[in-house]
Amino acid sequence: MTFKNLDTTGAFDALSHLQPGNPKTLLNAERIKAYQAPAGAGITYQYAAMPVQEEHLQLLAALAEEQQLISKYQALLDGEVMNTGEKRLVLHQLTRGQIGKNVIADGENKATFYQEQLKEIERFSDQVRTGKLTGSTGKRFTTVVQIGIGGSDLGPRALHLALKGWCSAQDITSLDARFISNVDPDDAQAIIRTLDLERTLFILVSKSGTTLETLTNRDLVIDAIKQAGIHGLDPSQHMVAVTSKTSPLAHSGSVRQAFFIDDYIGGRYSSTSAVGAVVLSLAFGFDTFKALLAGAHEADLQALKPSIKENAALLDALLGVYLRNVLHYPSTAILPYSQALSRFPAHLQQLDMESNGKHVNRDGQNLSYPTGPVIFGEPGTNGQHSFYQLLHQGTDIVPLQFIGFSKSQYGKDVLVEGSTSQAKLNANLIAQIVAFARGKEDANPNKCFAGNRPASLLYADRLDPKVLGALLAHYENKVMFQGFLWNLNSFDQEGVQLGKVLATKVLNGCEGDAVLKAFTELL
Amino acid sequence: MTFKNLDTTGAFDALSHLQPGNPKTLLNAERIKAYQAPAGAGITYQYAAMPVQEEHLQLLAALAEEQQLISKYQALLDGEVMNTGEKRLVLHQLTRGQIGKNVIADGENKATFYQEQLKEIERFSDQVRTGKLTGSTGKRFTTVVQIGIGGSDLGPRALHLALKGWCSAQDITSLDARFISNVDPDDAQAIIRTLDLERTLFILVSKSGTTLETLTNRDLVIDAIKQAGIHGLDPSQHMVAVTSKTSPLAHSGSVRQAFFIDDYIGGRYSSTSAVGAVVLSLAFGFDTFKALLAGAHEADLQALKPSIKENAALLDALLGVYLRNVLHYPSTAILPYSQALSRFPAHLQQLDMESNGKHVNRDGQNLSYPTGPVIFGEPGTNGQHSFYQLLHQGTDIVPLQFIGFSKSQYGKDVLVEGSTSQAKLNANLIAQIVAFARGKEDANPNKCFAGNRPASLLYADRLDPKVLGALLAHYENKVMFQGFLWNLNSFDQEGVQLGKVLATKVLNGCEGDAVLKAFTELL
Repeated sequence: MTFKNLDTTGAFDALSHLQPGNPKTLLNAERIKAYQAPAGAGITYQYAAMPVQEEHLQLLAALAEEQQLISKYQALLDGEVMNTGEKRLVLHQLTRGQIGKNVIADGENKATFYQEQLKEIERFSDQVRTGKLTGSTGKRFTTVVQIGIGGSDLGPRALHLALKGWCSAQDITSLDARFISNVDPDDAQAIIRTLDLERTLFILVSKSGTTLETLTNRDLVIDAIKQAGIHGLDPSQHMVAVTSKTSPLAHSGSVRQAFFIDDYIGGRYSSTSAVGAVVLSLAFGFDTFKALLAGAHEADLQALKPSIKENAALLDALLGVYLRNVLHYPSTAILPYSQALSRFPAHLQQLDMESNGKHVNRDGQNLSYPTGPVIFGEPGTNGQHSFYQLLHQGTDIVPLQFIGFSKSQYGKDVLVEGSTSQAKLNANLIAQIVAFARGKEDANPNKCFAGNRPASLLYADRLDPKVLGALLAHYENKVMFQGFLWNLNSFDQEGVQLGKVLATKVLNGCEGDAVLKAFTELL
Repeated sequence: MTFKNLDTTGAFDALSHLQPGNPKTLLNAERIKAYQAPAGAGITYQYAAMPVQEEHLQLLAALAEEQQLISKYQALLDGEVMNTGEKRLVLHQLTRGQIGKNVIADGENKATFYQEQLKEIERFSDQVRTGKLTGSTGKRFTTVVQIGIGGSDLGPRALHLALKGWCSAQDITSLDARFISNVDPDDAQAIIRTLDLERTLFILVSKSGTTLETLTNRDLVIDAIKQAGIHGLDPSQHMVAVTSKTSPLAHSGSVRQAFFIDDYIGGRYSSTSAVGAVVLSLAFGFDTFKALLAGAHEADLQALKPSIKENAALLDALLGVYLRNVLHYPSTAILPYSQALSRFPAHLQQLDMESNGKHVNRDGQNLSYPTGPVIFGEPGTNGQHSFYQLLHQGTDIVPLQFIGFSKSQYGKDVLVEGSTSQAKLNANLIAQIVAFARGKEDANPNKCFAGNRPASLLYADRLDPKVLGALLAHYENKVMFQGFLWNLNSFDQEGVQLGKVLATKVLNGCEGDAVLKAFTELL
């Protein structure tokens, strides 16, 4: 393997000199049929409205070759140290199935380690769900609260919301799940006051076991449990931990049980590890989580296909780099036409921006080209009545990634004026892609739409656990390929350190009105 | 008044030729004291970490003069037709108090009209809250569900969430409030299944009374009520409308009562009209809503001050244009250090991007400079564990607007390692501003922070109804001033039309698997 900056590749140079395609004139029925690539688990990546033609695609394929994207992915799967900054392996794909060689680290087979954790989680979640394990006063658990922040929160929270409707429609008995993340004490308070503490199980999630927000919120919860003054209510029997084996949380005696992850699972990639497994298995049953893993595994396998026409993650990554580095678009909107995915963009925002918002390459040298874009998004059709004005008629072009499904999750719908709500939702989805691409002439410039707004679409039959797992893995793999393209390390996050260090300096000086005083003391 | 494009003003030309200030070297204790402007209701706008010095501020003040920002605001208050595209007045400020001349339109004094609606809402909400008005089966209402989309959803939803903790801490008895917006049938279903329909009051919010999503969701709700098969349960007694007097919803007989807005309240500016008043008064009591109006009115008055040093909305607008048009930054992050404001950025995203995401000026001529930026954001400290990596070390600079408060809403907190959670929250807030501005040198480039990331801060004692009202109005007025600076119409939204028209064409062809077929039929 060789590692080269993007701007030293011949394919990128050739791409930069090629006239981009214009979706306004290109979008036609033939392209809609032809410009599709599988993402795994029945998801199709549709890119007919992207500003490329066959000649661009050939150069993008050449770029994939030149940057050895598939070989690097395979090396990652085989256990190479791809997190160069922290000198760590990158093993989140292994949490859902083994594709590469046996990975031995820390004196163990890592696939076995992840499988063992899953088995523990299966046993534990079954016992809680069937009422064999109860709270300290003998009452059955009805609610589970995940306490975590960043990767211990955004992914599991988005996945929980994404599956709630589907599980409800399948009559899968579920524990209610809630999430506390922010160090703002109002976040914990708003949740705690709604809980029946005797029936609540808290999951403390922190890989290091030292995350300030999470430990503070744990103490807020313990305080509330003590203040409840219920005879026999023992906080330690209402808490489990997801952490690493060496963390202070692992053996503290303050938790009922600990489930383990390791240093090879980055926070933003941890949803398919114990970080997501415990809360989702408790809420929806272990089988639901297993289906999610199966979907992610399918997408991981799909991402190994060498041809861009059969590998949506690879192609999505290449097209994203084309938009960013050849066409210089600084942001991308993620627009799921599914209310269940309303917090999925917030997870992708972390996944993408924390992974590829870097200014140095994997060897620590400054890069001279833009890397990760700003990622934002809200579900459609809501966004249509909000920020789409700027997307259609603003002065900047924002590339768009739509997500859609043929069927709803609950399957409960009504005919209004001859069509269901689901049909209306999808009619809007495709209408928007066409409107963005083609635009519209009008004698009144205020009613003109320039068009040529690039869009792609990830489309599947229904948002079930398997499809959701594949969708999640698609984005993880896309981000990974983009990191390889930009020749940076997508797996560390040095940018979060400085603020942490500075905050520690003034922690005790920030009570009440003293905040602005502390502000000057930081200088 | 004269209306000129930004790039024809002398002050802008002078600003473009002036070297920007660098927060890295500029940020010091003296500036922190001096660079503050009041935003009303005790909110301070702190801009010490912005890339400007006195000479920039003088030119920005000159720009405000040259573009006659205060006169234009006064003209708007006095009832001039400032929504030129739709030939309408712009009267949302009048919903919270009269500052300008009497505005007579549609044969009535508009201040009187808005006051009358408020009185109706006060009476109605009191009757519901005290149990004088009940559901059709005689049961007291406990839950209110707002059905609306865009401006009928995002603002009221964000404000409701923002006040929930404060009202709870004040023991203000409240009805539970929920929101349905998306045409995705799963959105309505997820809410409906949790409701006690006999005790639920629905508020249909649509100015035109023809919004597809809202009418469809109404029908889904009526269907659910009928299917519940409860003797005597009459949907029309469980619905009220907020709409215009001429809309089909106003006199349909299908609602119990209608409250009115008019054409001079744009959706994204409607939170202080009946659109926000009904749901917030039901949830938190009319007095709470009145305090919110009082705060907004204070901010509206503050925005009339001619000096930029006494007018935060004006200065925030000017600095935003400086960042956008001189420094060419394409996006802005809104970062509230308050979980209660977790959906406030989504409201501001609509407010800003729908208002100023325009490519033509108020006379319909194409503009040759960038207008409204992409707006996104999530609450801190959550964001620190997510996308802040890119903000600190990405290749692009993203200007930041922080929001913070000395005190929490619930006031329930614990000391962990010598500091409260609230102190930790605020320590992080100021530490981030310093980290973004100053950066950090390091021998390892991967640990380097370039600094020079501009940030401003809106700061107040506590997020109560008055402060929230002022915060809302601050942003509305900022966006208005920016529209004047760019010489565009911030009050129409032609960009939402094309997608709507195209969607209508294929509504009936989008059932199940036929979606991609309908896609090609749109071409």
